[in-house]
Amino acid sequence: VGVSEFFLVLVAILVAAKLLGEVAERVGQPAVLGELVAGVILGASLLGVVDPEQEIVHLLAELGVVILLFEIGLETDLKKLMAVGSSAASVAVVGVVLPFALGYAVAWALGLDTIASLVAGAAMTATSVGITARVLSDLGRLHDPEGQVVLGAAVIDDVLGLIVLAVIARVVAGGEVGLGDVAGSTAAAFGFLGVAIILGRLLVPGLFALLARVGRGRALAVMGLSLALLAALAAELAGSALIIGAFAAGVVLQPTPQAHAVQAGIVRLGHLFVPIFFVAVGAAVDVRAFADPRVLALGLALLVAGILGKLAAGYAPWWFRGRKLVVGVAMVPRGEVGLIFAQMGLAAGAVGAGEYSALLLMVMGTTFFTPPVLRMLLKDGPPPTEGPAGVAEMVSEI
Amino acid sequence: VGVSEFFLVLVAILVAAKLLGEVAERVGQPAVLGELVAGVILGASLLGVVDPEQEIVHLLAELGVVILLFEIGLETDLKKLMAVGSSAASVAVVGVVLPFALGYAVAWALGLDTIASLVAGAAMTATSVGITARVLSDLGRLHDPEGQVVLGAAVIDDVLGLIVLAVIARVVAGGEVGLGDVAGSTAAAFGFLGVAIILGRLLVPGLFALLARVGRGRALAVMGLSLALLAALAAELAGSALIIGAFAAGVVLQPTPQAHAVQAGIVRLGHLFVPIFFVAVGAAVDVRAFADPRVLALGLALLVAGILGKLAAGYAPWWFRGRKLVVGVAMVPRGEVGLIFAQMGLAAGAVGAGEYSALLLMVMGTTFFTPPVLRMLLKDGPPPTEGPAGVAEMVSEI
Repeated sequence: VGVSEFFLVLVAILVAAKLLGEVAERVGQPAVLGELVAGVILGASLLGVVDPEQEIVHLLAELGVVILLFEIGLETDLKKLMAVGSSAASVAVVGVVLPFALGYAVAWALGLDTIASLVAGAAMTATSVGITARVLSDLGRLHDPEGQVVLGAAVIDDVLGLIVLAVIARVVAGGEVGLGDVAGSTAAAFGFLGVAIILGRLLVPGLFALLARVGRGRALAVMGLSLALLAALAAELAGSALIIGAFAAGVVLQPTPQAHAVQAGIVRLGHLFVPIFFVAVGAAVDVRAFADPRVLALGLALLVAGILGKLAAGYAPWWFRGRKLVVGVAMVPRGEVGLIFAQMGLAAGAVGAGEYSALLLMVMGTTFFTPPVLRMLLKDGPPPTEGPAGVAEMVSEI
Repeated sequence: VGVSEFFLVLVAILVAAKLLGEVAERVGQPAVLGELVAGVILGASLLGVVDPEQEIVHLLAELGVVILLFEIGLETDLKKLMAVGSSAASVAVVGVVLPFALGYAVAWALGLDTIASLVAGAAMTATSVGITARVLSDLGRLHDPEGQVVLGAAVIDDVLGLIVLAVIARVVAGGEVGLGDVAGSTAAAFGFLGVAIILGRLLVPGLFALLARVGRGRALAVMGLSLALLAALAAELAGSALIIGAFAAGVVLQPTPQAHAVQAGIVRLGHLFVPIFFVAVGAAVDVRAFADPRVLALGLALLVAGILGKLAAGYAPWWFRGRKLVVGVAMVPRGEVGLIFAQMGLAAGAVGAGEYSALLLMVMGTTFFTPPVLRMLLKDGPPPTEGPAGVAEMVSEI
């Protein structure tokens, strides 16, 4: 890719994302919906301007989702999150088990073989933290009790989804899976989050106080971003996901006196990089595959199963006093992890091109389902809960 | 390049640049000097962490220099620049002709053939706008009369350098060059700047007033960046350089009421991207080539010729009342265009590996020469001239 082509693609992404984001808000929808539509339009199946598998687009999109989760972490009060921990955990577990079972059953009933049905079920497990957090943030609902449960559950089920991914990858490759392997993956994934937050809370405040003194308050945002990138790498090495590490870095920095300065810079970087991620997600959609009625039928059946499974998960914490339907709806969007399952299955020959497109339809449909429905549900609810001062407005500016 | 490697390289660039930038300032030097040293250390000949020819590094570095020139343009008052136009033009012309003649003579005297000597002379013509503007900005001297002459001259001689490039490229390729070709290239390159500024002043204020109204003041920085990228592309299509287009975009936006909002966002983006450019420039240096005494001798001779040529150019506008030595010293750094000449000569076989390294030594030496000398000269001078409110501090934060 030459410099000229890179600049052209970047301008196309930024202008389309901001324009359609504005249009979405004008019709009462979150801006992220407009950015996803911008991606579909710019993607391979329509205009062909943005190829999400092109190295530069892929790398900048990953940087975008890391910055987004770092921002969300910087806004997350760990105490508030722990207070809803049991609710979040139950939503996460039910929201992984139920969609997996439903997805497997639907796929098998529609004639897929066992392995393909397993891949289909697995692709339906993990809520997209990025999309869900962005939708809640666009609607100013990240700090509501429901928002906190959803955020916690989405982080937990992303970790669960990665465990499912590790197991299914072995099954698809024809290997044996013991209970010990599953227990090991689980411990590694959750262990990272715990160790990262405990270690981070011990070391990071001192480090950033030193950086602020040495640099006279400058370069803090760039240092915060470096921390987030390193934490993302550590998470991946520990068998967790990049975005979990970035989120942990934000959570660790949140109570420090430097958090506000870091955030002010990071939000500006987010204006540039976060839309690249959502446009890339949209650009991965191939709208032409749905011309085949069998693909369309399978995709729609999986979509319905995917929505119902997560809606039911919202009702799992029967003791939670918030609006359970809001939690369920907010858990619906699938994203990166679902796409990874679909691609893995396609690459290994476990699913064919038609089933792959049906899985994409499910992922895409869940992503487009939540923003308007959530917006409708929240219109008549109580007023939004305020977050840390000055922050809600900054993030809604993205 | 995988995501993990990209994140690692990015962290290495950012941390090393900010750390050595801070060290440079502690010892009384501009931060950019530390960033260049960070690049040399991270580059292929020492640690091997940063490869400036890797696609992602190259593209982000180009984005960095475009953002830098856009920032500089946003701070440039066209009227003030026009007021020193004749001084700037004379510095530029003498600063292209004299180093070309001196470089050719030195190379020829040291035994290079005619074509290699032409390449050597050509590589010495263009001052690096990016490095020079950054040094002046680090020292708070961008708005001094001397700073304005240097900025204008550096923009003009970059255009002249590109014309020389077009001519030399044909000579190296063995083609004929007529006076008409040279006149055509010249008209195209200067024509772009004039047309862009006139057209831009007509269209851009209305467009940005509309964008500010429609988007309620949001997304202005991203729209400003998009304008800069499009102007950069237009400049390249017109036979000029990317950075000239980005500079023109900034100059056009500068008098609009939206300039400040654009600038606030762009400066933040600059914190991230501009160091990538300077680290990439430093990383291109192969320190091992200087083990050969003949390479070292040629390089040092070209370096002395390169410094003397630009110093003399500072005295060309005899009517200019500022400090001519300051202008001359500030014109010394060569950068991108010099490196392009060296690479073109190497690729075409016009210069060998040894001569190539000598040219790199000249480029590198001029870049390291200016910051400390300029800092020394300015220490006892009059106090710096203030720029537009609040802007000098923001840029010095980079």
